[in-house]
Amino acid sequence: MPDALHRCTYDCHTHFVPRAFPRYAGKGQDVPWPQMDGAGCGHGQVTISGKPFRKVSAAAWDGTLRQEDMARSGVDVQVVSPMPELLSYWFSADDGATMCDFLNQEISALVRSAPERFVGLGAVPLQDPERACRALEELMRDASFRGVEIGSNINGVPIGDASFAEFFATAERLGAAIFVHALKPVGDERITGPLSLRAMLSFPCEVSFAIGSAITGGLLTRHPYLRIAFSHGGGAFASVLPRLQHAWRSIDSIRALVAEEPIAIARRLYFDTLVYSPELLGHLVGQIGAERFLAGSDFPFDIADRDPVGSVRVALSRAEADMILHDNAQRFLGTRSEISSPPVAAR
Amino acid sequence: MPDALHRCTYDCHTHFVPRAFPRYAGKGQDVPWPQMDGAGCGHGQVTISGKPFRKVSAAAWDGTLRQEDMARSGVDVQVVSPMPELLSYWFSADDGATMCDFLNQEISALVRSAPERFVGLGAVPLQDPERACRALEELMRDASFRGVEIGSNINGVPIGDASFAEFFATAERLGAAIFVHALKPVGDERITGPLSLRAMLSFPCEVSFAIGSAITGGLLTRHPYLRIAFSHGGGAFASVLPRLQHAWRSIDSIRALVAEEPIAIARRLYFDTLVYSPELLGHLVGQIGAERFLAGSDFPFDIADRDPVGSVRVALSRAEADMILHDNAQRFLGTRSEISSPPVAAR
Repeated sequence: MPDALHRCTYDCHTHFVPRAFPRYAGKGQDVPWPQMDGAGCGHGQVTISGKPFRKVSAAAWDGTLRQEDMARSGVDVQVVSPMPELLSYWFSADDGATMCDFLNQEISALVRSAPERFVGLGAVPLQDPERACRALEELMRDASFRGVEIGSNINGVPIGDASFAEFFATAERLGAAIFVHALKPVGDERITGPLSLRAMLSFPCEVSFAIGSAITGGLLTRHPYLRIAFSHGGGAFASVLPRLQHAWRSIDSIRALVAEEPIAIARRLYFDTLVYSPELLGHLVGQIGAERFLAGSDFPFDIADRDPVGSVRVALSRAEADMILHDNAQRFLGTRSEISSPPVAAR
Repeated sequence: MPDALHRCTYDCHTHFVPRAFPRYAGKGQDVPWPQMDGAGCGHGQVTISGKPFRKVSAAAWDGTLRQEDMARSGVDVQVVSPMPELLSYWFSADDGATMCDFLNQEISALVRSAPERFVGLGAVPLQDPERACRALEELMRDASFRGVEIGSNINGVPIGDASFAEFFATAERLGAAIFVHALKPVGDERITGPLSLRAMLSFPCEVSFAIGSAITGGLLTRHPYLRIAFSHGGGAFASVLPRLQHAWRSIDSIRALVAEEPIAIARRLYFDTLVYSPELLGHLVGQIGAERFLAGSDFPFDIADRDPVGSVRVALSRAEADMILHDNAQRFLGTRSEISSPPVAAR
């Protein structure tokens, strides 16, 4: 345990799966509502439409198991967001709202069980942006939550699309942190082999498309106080940014499309550190700046970085690592006083 | 001009567009066959189905203009491949073969006009892999060519698909170099704004999917002597590789899908240097090794790196830059004696 709250070590990319799902009680037919089956050996099996979707460790729902792992890996606080495949944008808005409410109640219960160890990022039914705004207002009244996780796309529509403008305005007004996670990625038709390769081959591209959409859609220009983070170190954006920057500088028609220099926009986004390469993390931090990175592990899934603290420390200077492990998370979550926030008159 | 051929400076990523296209003479209806209109000021306008596709500099077809630019940028030899959007996989095999033959004749004429300054990579109608094999055999009898450019996908089918196995076997047998270029990328539905952003936001992902497909499709395992290069520094593969490598090491089911450690496969591929960032190029070379990189500019298009030699020199050590600017191209093209080639008995 940290001796003072402000030196807590945060893991900002951890996921939650509930121990069980309520039975489907909506009005739809053949809705691919998840259920949880026992899988033995401390695991559960998430089943969707009768097919096994993912086997998950009981640490996905059990706060005691989570804290045992945190003690092992030197994490003081987990920022806990839903397993993205539970975000339920593909259900009716009513069904989506039911699932989001349930997930939020469960995450809130986990946070309340150890409020100094867990911070929640909830879920909102973004298939109905207006309803998502109301849900976000309600969520932010619960002290368990500092914001929400959203998908990199909402039923295929990228997050920079104008249809989500009111939602991001609401998040900015409420000071809600937004964590954008790869979800239902593009590119299945480009995979040679089973779709389990998506998580490796497609997720980085999907995250990069979400960042590109945020940039070309003018999200940060419209909402300068929005605190928004992207999973997997921003994925392929590491390769896209210099290309976009070069085009913006050298091609008039591209400059006409993007209000600000792309690198300047990128430096107002947050990214997690989950890139599995100290060299790549060092490169990213060198390009974007250590103050924009948040430690992340993908706990408790198979692909997780089992040593998210060590991965940051080995890649970076002590000052950079300290910033990433301690301070940045509080700034992103809005729990630190020097966070950038709109002057009261602008609210 | 270099004092000795082996110290020539190569630009391996330059494109060709013919001064004019033959009239469409095939059997199709409403075939989107390109035509070239004058655009004034030393430019032509490629028009497809009556719509302007791209304005191109006369340097796209004019060897004298190309050599003037080469003198300016310190390039001794351009490796010349078709503008990828001319690869014509979307036509009938007959129409595609007609276009490929025409492009190959025109590139061959350019190379023959100054054989010490230009090396050709031709086009083959890969929508009919068997026909593409015969076309490759014919092409490689023309000393103007050292191989071919292919798209990152063939009408949506990624290059690692089994349907192209015979083509790659033929390329390996003939010692033909393969340059894989981003083409008709995935992800249009993820772009907020006009599709002109594809070149920035989607190309890096598309190239990475092609590399992923080559790896999970076992291309290099099946064809260990194949010399294959990927455009744009491999694009998003910089971010995909460590994730794939981590998954391969930590998840049994992923290891079962890929015959070799992904990093070991990556180190048998070639990549160009066209990443617009000395820091990113330095990172890539550090990960993969300088011996796998080829200087590339995207000449003569708007997005081109106008100083491909300087971009390599500023990013890397002198020894690394020398390797990339001089030796690697000859190894990739098969014009250097120490190239890896199958023992005679294995052919």
